[in-house]
Amino acid sequence: MGQSQSLVEVWRGPFCESLHRGHAVVWDSGGDIVASWGDPDTIILPRSSCKMLQALPLLESGAAEAFCLTDAQVALSCASHQGAAVHTDMVTDWLKGLGLEPETALRCGPQVPDDIDARDGLIRAYETPCQMHNNCSGKHSGFLTLSKHLGAGPEYIDLDHPVQRAVLQAFEEMTEETSPGYGIDGCSAPNHASSISGLARAMAKFANAKGDGDGRDRAMHRLTHAMATYPHLVAGETRACTNLMRAMEGRVAVKTGAEAVFVAIVPETGMGVAVKIEDGGTRAAEAVVTQILVGMGVLNADHPVAKQYTHGPIRNRRDVETGFLRPVDGLADWRL
Amino acid sequence: MGQSQSLVEVWRGPFCESLHRGHAVVWDSGGDIVASWGDPDTIILPRSSCKMLQALPLLESGAAEAFCLTDAQVALSCASHQGAAVHTDMVTDWLKGLGLEPETALRCGPQVPDDIDARDGLIRAYETPCQMHNNCSGKHSGFLTLSKHLGAGPEYIDLDHPVQRAVLQAFEEMTEETSPGYGIDGCSAPNHASSISGLARAMAKFANAKGDGDGRDRAMHRLTHAMATYPHLVAGETRACTNLMRAMEGRVAVKTGAEAVFVAIVPETGMGVAVKIEDGGTRAAEAVVTQILVGMGVLNADHPVAKQYTHGPIRNRRDVETGFLRPVDGLADWRL
Repeated sequence: MGQSQSLVEVWRGPFCESLHRGHAVVWDSGGDIVASWGDPDTIILPRSSCKMLQALPLLESGAAEAFCLTDAQVALSCASHQGAAVHTDMVTDWLKGLGLEPETALRCGPQVPDDIDARDGLIRAYETPCQMHNNCSGKHSGFLTLSKHLGAGPEYIDLDHPVQRAVLQAFEEMTEETSPGYGIDGCSAPNHASSISGLARAMAKFANAKGDGDGRDRAMHRLTHAMATYPHLVAGETRACTNLMRAMEGRVAVKTGAEAVFVAIVPETGMGVAVKIEDGGTRAAEAVVTQILVGMGVLNADHPVAKQYTHGPIRNRRDVETGFLRPVDGLADWRL
Repeated sequence: MGQSQSLVEVWRGPFCESLHRGHAVVWDSGGDIVASWGDPDTIILPRSSCKMLQALPLLESGAAEAFCLTDAQVALSCASHQGAAVHTDMVTDWLKGLGLEPETALRCGPQVPDDIDARDGLIRAYETPCQMHNNCSGKHSGFLTLSKHLGAGPEYIDLDHPVQRAVLQAFEEMTEETSPGYGIDGCSAPNHASSISGLARAMAKFANAKGDGDGRDRAMHRLTHAMATYPHLVAGETRACTNLMRAMEGRVAVKTGAEAVFVAIVPETGMGVAVKIEDGGTRAAEAVVTQILVGMGVLNADHPVAKQYTHGPIRNRRDVETGFLRPVDGLADWRL
């Protein structure tokens, strides 16, 4: 892991109580770094932040077209959703449309939904969560769609399965790097490593897709458009991805990943952003990507969502304001 | 915040995915630093890790004796409990015994209990959590007991209330520092800052109390004994404080605090330990304090609890082992 730099302070009263360090890169259409913090060469596991990369073969192969996927389904294939009814109902219908029984076809494992209504519904019914509730079940529905299109076997998360081979090829082409290896993700799919620059470079490619070029161009354009159009399908109510995309009204696509990764695709500037907080602290990844979007001029600093993620406030259990976040100088004052 | 050092790595596959930096100090009975990592002079807010310091006036004033508090109640006064029935029932009985109506007397605010049975019970009954569920309600019951003993007013969390003045005096005497200020805690009580060395020094004083000296000596001895004797009252099932104290079978008292503070009181070595992870990552604070207890020879490295907190493993939603924690060299190989 490369040399990180301080990015976000957490204050309580007159004390900087905690500090988050990390790395961030802004990449432009010309293939250059516009700005960076920390070490742009640091190797990271992008985790769920690269779901739009993992979804490229679904579109480029013709599978999405063959199975008449809607833009909403395309957005869900990039989601880390929170298992609300809107998400699990879509996954159920999608897989049944493929002739698959969700619980036997999926390989993501069960997860307690973050959606409060869904969680409470399960608790009141004395039911356990299922694989549809897994935040990655939309991505896995995409994998299963591609697998069916390719006529491949059911173990679609194996590294040498045609689905994962296609994902790795797209990932390396987009990052313009030979991936140095992979880890197994929370949902059991392989997650390929890249430099944080490589991830930002890939996001810049998405940002510059016009939708009138080759298959990849059209796939990138559709994925960005689908994510930005359906913010609630990419995450869910109260979540940063959803709140940020809503605040930017369809002009920007953003995506979080576990262990504090965050990416942004900004078509109007033709730029891609990638953030990794060294310690895995999500609150800081949200603060950094939001601050960069403010600095890029695509999110108003005074928007309540921008203020929430960059500065808090932190409130306690009696709703007393006890502290705040603060992006450091050099990040807070960065402007494109 | 002083210069931290790398303490705990988080690995996934062949990659160090995240890294936690921080500070830790081991203090001995002679008033010296035995070992330190990071900056021993760094100023921290101890948060809930100093609850046994905040409980000293309850005992030293004679309030605990006057109201016939049991050792179980003394342990609960130091707790960050998880709102299980055992905790909330004790708080209810305690406050009713003082002639107080819990919801009108407490000033800690409501909190969703971390205890799964308690949480699910509330959800199934369509009830909202109350102040008794607040993880600090035992500490606040202690404050209310002291306040009643002193004949003081109901706003016991105000900085100039006799209860909080007594807490500050004990805190400064124990840390041997003039506190540089305070923050408001999650439970709305003032939380006084100290150096991490000061916090470790205070814990060493607890470790060296014999219970046969002056009022403070007897108070410190009783608090340590009560915490170590009732691990499930100090936190609750599945929690690090409870698991670690159980693993050490009453010989050591440990206590966590928000934003990744952790302390330990080790009577058999006469030493105190204080840990602060710079980024507020609790998993790392648990790993560091556990590793130090192993290095001090009071926790067997092969004990399942020791292995769990120092090395994971990290498992995903299909129970696949995807990674592990690793205390860095210089911490992992430290021995007293």
